[in-house]
Amino acid sequence: MTRTHPAGTPLGDDFHVYDTTLRDGAQREGISYSVTDKLAVARLLDGLGVGFIEGGWPGALPKDTEFFHRAAQGELELDHAALVAFGSTRRAGSTVEEDRQVAALLDSGAPVVTLVAKSDRRHVERALRTDVAENCAMVADTVRYLVEHGRRVFLDAEHFFDGYAFDPDTSLRVLDAAAGAGADVVVLCDTNGGQLPLQLAETVEEVIARTGLRVGIHCQDDTGCAVANSVAAVQAGASHVQCTANGYGERAGNADLFAVLGNLGAKLGKPVLPEGKLAELTRVSHALAEIANLAPDTHQAYVGHSAFAHKAGLHASAIKVDPELYNHLDPVDVGNDMRVLVTEMAGRASLELKGAELGLELSPEAVGDAVRKVKELEARGWSFEAADASLELLLRRESGDAALDAPFELESYRVLLDHRDDGEVVSEATVRVSVSGERVIATAEGNGPVNALDAALRQALVPRLPWLESVELADYKVRILVDEPGTDAVTRVLVESRDGEQEWTTVGVHANIVEASWLALSDALSYKSLRRNVTAASR
Amino acid sequence: MTRTHPAGTPLGDDFHVYDTTLRDGAQREGISYSVTDKLAVARLLDGLGVGFIEGGWPGALPKDTEFFHRAAQGELELDHAALVAFGSTRRAGSTVEEDRQVAALLDSGAPVVTLVAKSDRRHVERALRTDVAENCAMVADTVRYLVEHGRRVFLDAEHFFDGYAFDPDTSLRVLDAAAGAGADVVVLCDTNGGQLPLQLAETVEEVIARTGLRVGIHCQDDTGCAVANSVAAVQAGASHVQCTANGYGERAGNADLFAVLGNLGAKLGKPVLPEGKLAELTRVSHALAEIANLAPDTHQAYVGHSAFAHKAGLHASAIKVDPELYNHLDPVDVGNDMRVLVTEMAGRASLELKGAELGLELSPEAVGDAVRKVKELEARGWSFEAADASLELLLRRESGDAALDAPFELESYRVLLDHRDDGEVVSEATVRVSVSGERVIATAEGNGPVNALDAALRQALVPRLPWLESVELADYKVRILVDEPGTDAVTRVLVESRDGEQEWTTVGVHANIVEASWLALSDALSYKSLRRNVTAASR
Repeated sequence: MTRTHPAGTPLGDDFHVYDTTLRDGAQREGISYSVTDKLAVARLLDGLGVGFIEGGWPGALPKDTEFFHRAAQGELELDHAALVAFGSTRRAGSTVEEDRQVAALLDSGAPVVTLVAKSDRRHVERALRTDVAENCAMVADTVRYLVEHGRRVFLDAEHFFDGYAFDPDTSLRVLDAAAGAGADVVVLCDTNGGQLPLQLAETVEEVIARTGLRVGIHCQDDTGCAVANSVAAVQAGASHVQCTANGYGERAGNADLFAVLGNLGAKLGKPVLPEGKLAELTRVSHALAEIANLAPDTHQAYVGHSAFAHKAGLHASAIKVDPELYNHLDPVDVGNDMRVLVTEMAGRASLELKGAELGLELSPEAVGDAVRKVKELEARGWSFEAADASLELLLRRESGDAALDAPFELESYRVLLDHRDDGEVVSEATVRVSVSGERVIATAEGNGPVNALDAALRQALVPRLPWLESVELADYKVRILVDEPGTDAVTRVLVESRDGEQEWTTVGVHANIVEASWLALSDALSYKSLRRNVTAASR
Repeated sequence: MTRTHPAGTPLGDDFHVYDTTLRDGAQREGISYSVTDKLAVARLLDGLGVGFIEGGWPGALPKDTEFFHRAAQGELELDHAALVAFGSTRRAGSTVEEDRQVAALLDSGAPVVTLVAKSDRRHVERALRTDVAENCAMVADTVRYLVEHGRRVFLDAEHFFDGYAFDPDTSLRVLDAAAGAGADVVVLCDTNGGQLPLQLAETVEEVIARTGLRVGIHCQDDTGCAVANSVAAVQAGASHVQCTANGYGERAGNADLFAVLGNLGAKLGKPVLPEGKLAELTRVSHALAEIANLAPDTHQAYVGHSAFAHKAGLHASAIKVDPELYNHLDPVDVGNDMRVLVTEMAGRASLELKGAELGLELSPEAVGDAVRKVKELEARGWSFEAADASLELLLRRESGDAALDAPFELESYRVLLDHRDDGEVVSEATVRVSVSGERVIATAEGNGPVNALDAALRQALVPRLPWLESVELADYKVRILVDEPGTDAVTRVLVESRDGEQEWTTVGVHANIVEASWLALSDALSYKSLRRNVTAASR
């Protein structure tokens, strides 16, 4: 693993897509990558075609040290990206040769090193407790040492924008020190994330004009502008952009790699990825969310499940005719789909679109029946816009789809809740179901009525339908609808399920919250059964 | 309600903070506001001090019609904001006088109307199927008609940026038609959300230079740049900015009101809100998420729980000494905290403030105890941000308030749910309580477990405490909290109650949804009892 330049991308080394999910992204509260996770993340990013993958900080974090070790042992084959180790310069008042952290950077075997350095005089004096001259010497010594040892070196100029506003000369001296010692790119970091695009673009332009150096950009999202700032910097002349997958990072996060690539690649037409790879954005984004064990952001630009979902019934018929008038680009370009949400505001056109999306052949009568059914259910409180799986079941039922064998049938259930006088609360459920002709009774306890019911149902079904075991409840939402004074309130339950491959949402509505949950739960299992049958049929 | 200009804001009518959460924000997948929700949202936004609140589309959506009706009947008192109705121009080939949708705008009683109009020639020809001249006539006729009827009118120029790039003359003609007929502001809408800030700022500047009109901005987030685009437009001369709370909206959403206000108000120092109101951003953001029944985005700029949370071990000690070196602004300015505190509310100062607001004399020890108690409860999933009544009960308990006689004490309850084999679902609850020394047992049926429990409790209490009869459940919200993988989920229930004079919200948390509901329900009745005692004492 000795690659120091991106491979297979149209712009070659002229433009750097630099990912730091594994280092800066891992700072996000709630993310904790194992070494195996880190290897999987790196493979996905390389498959997407980014130019550089920053793997971590060897010597500072044991997992990162191990990641580089295993990568160097051959566990990580990269087709496009160069692997980067992150670290800091030698300490003040010491030599680079005796700095163990610098030694760890060399030991990591990474062919590229990104060094972080202070570029705000206040940080130099108040946090490092040294002076500008020594800070520049730390930068120059370390860069030179690594370059002499055959490494390609980039400099992350920390707190650059605040520092440059406070005392530009200090900040520029740090950049010059790095470049003079052999650093290839000086990366201007908005470490506190306080920048806005118009001013940031001006500063980038000014720094390039004053120094003539190759400049990169690294933005945090504290003003909600990290993506915009990154794109503005590139438009102002930066030719190296540091991002993280899905914007993961400390505080409000970093610039989202996928939005930045969407903007540069699909919107501005800059060939920042190998050909055809933009269409992988959505898949890679979701896969990386899975590895981080975070729910994908449904409303994320470009790659979110809702990013191209249209609700307004007003436009549904027009969208069908002229989708390009209503989308800022073709969702297929970034591997996403246009979806039309079915709501009280929508009608026939949106259900036809939905059917086509699912590959169903719906007769005009079936569409008419489905429209009536949806309207009738929505009038009673059902909502299909967030419950795609329930809508698919409904449409397939209307189209008489053969893949729709219900996996079980309910006879009855009973739930008992007891708040005893010692304060204990106990929930117990008994279900009576028939599974492929066999009648089964099961009883289970749970920490609440729905949990007990779910447990009893699984106890009845899993021995007979073992493929149901992988289905788990990912999220559960309840809404009480009390719109009409004087009428009985109904409860709407949304259940989000997953099986390791897919997530789907089902809905149930009833005056009784437990029955509503039951309806959504049993739809969730029917949907799993349906997907299984559809997959089997397509083999 | 006849206000047409913002009140109490430093910039008066010179700058418009315009919120469209209730109309455009409601397009977000998964949001479904009741009319009561809409009123609560409007009150929170008005309390924050926005200048305009767009309440919906009367005549098009029955809930929106009812919202304006109830607002006009006196259910919505606004201190700062003017209320706005949204609608479209008259249809092609017809007159404004016979347009029922335009009539509904007048009937709504809203003093301000925002009209949406096509400003992209392709949309005029392909979606509206008319020509540019008729489109301009539709705009001019409708604006003039509404102005003649005493309304202040703004124009939302839909798909403006795409249209202007395609055929600038058509787009400018639409703006001129509106302004010529009396529209006060022409709002350039990036309806498809495909803009990037540098280009958008140029266009805004150019349009202002070419037309001399007062220009507003409305951005969608499809490039992840809605906040940046909105701020850039203001810097380019726009003096009216349309946003939604937390960026709720169709597809990737809209410009987030809180990030835009943070950037304009805290970062650029523009006094866009009444004095002191920036410090409410975090609280209002979270309360609006609760009403939308969505989890607040922990990584949201400015207001996210993690927005000022530092993880990097590298800086931990330096942050303690010099926090201003590591935060882009003081989190207190926007009502947030630097540390990952248990809560926004748990700060000593805010609890003291709350106590003073309630007229409680809290000793320093009582405040200390209350802070500890709130932190401990919030660590277990409680949330007091939207549950003022529960917080008041907690504070009064800590202050040993005499008005706090619990109206009853629970011994035990039992709930039985039966889904019978004929498909009927039956819920029955039995409660054992003591009411002023007397032990009472009551059993009741309900349409669900919580309803049955509520019915049984009322049956036990109302004959003895007849003033409880007026209390009714206005709304009920459930959130399942699954923070730590591998640990048991807990359920948080928010109950909104009303008695014809007042509305109040209480919270309950437990692994069992029925027990959580019970806790919130009994707090709701305790609160009613408290208010009654406080009122009696003050007579």
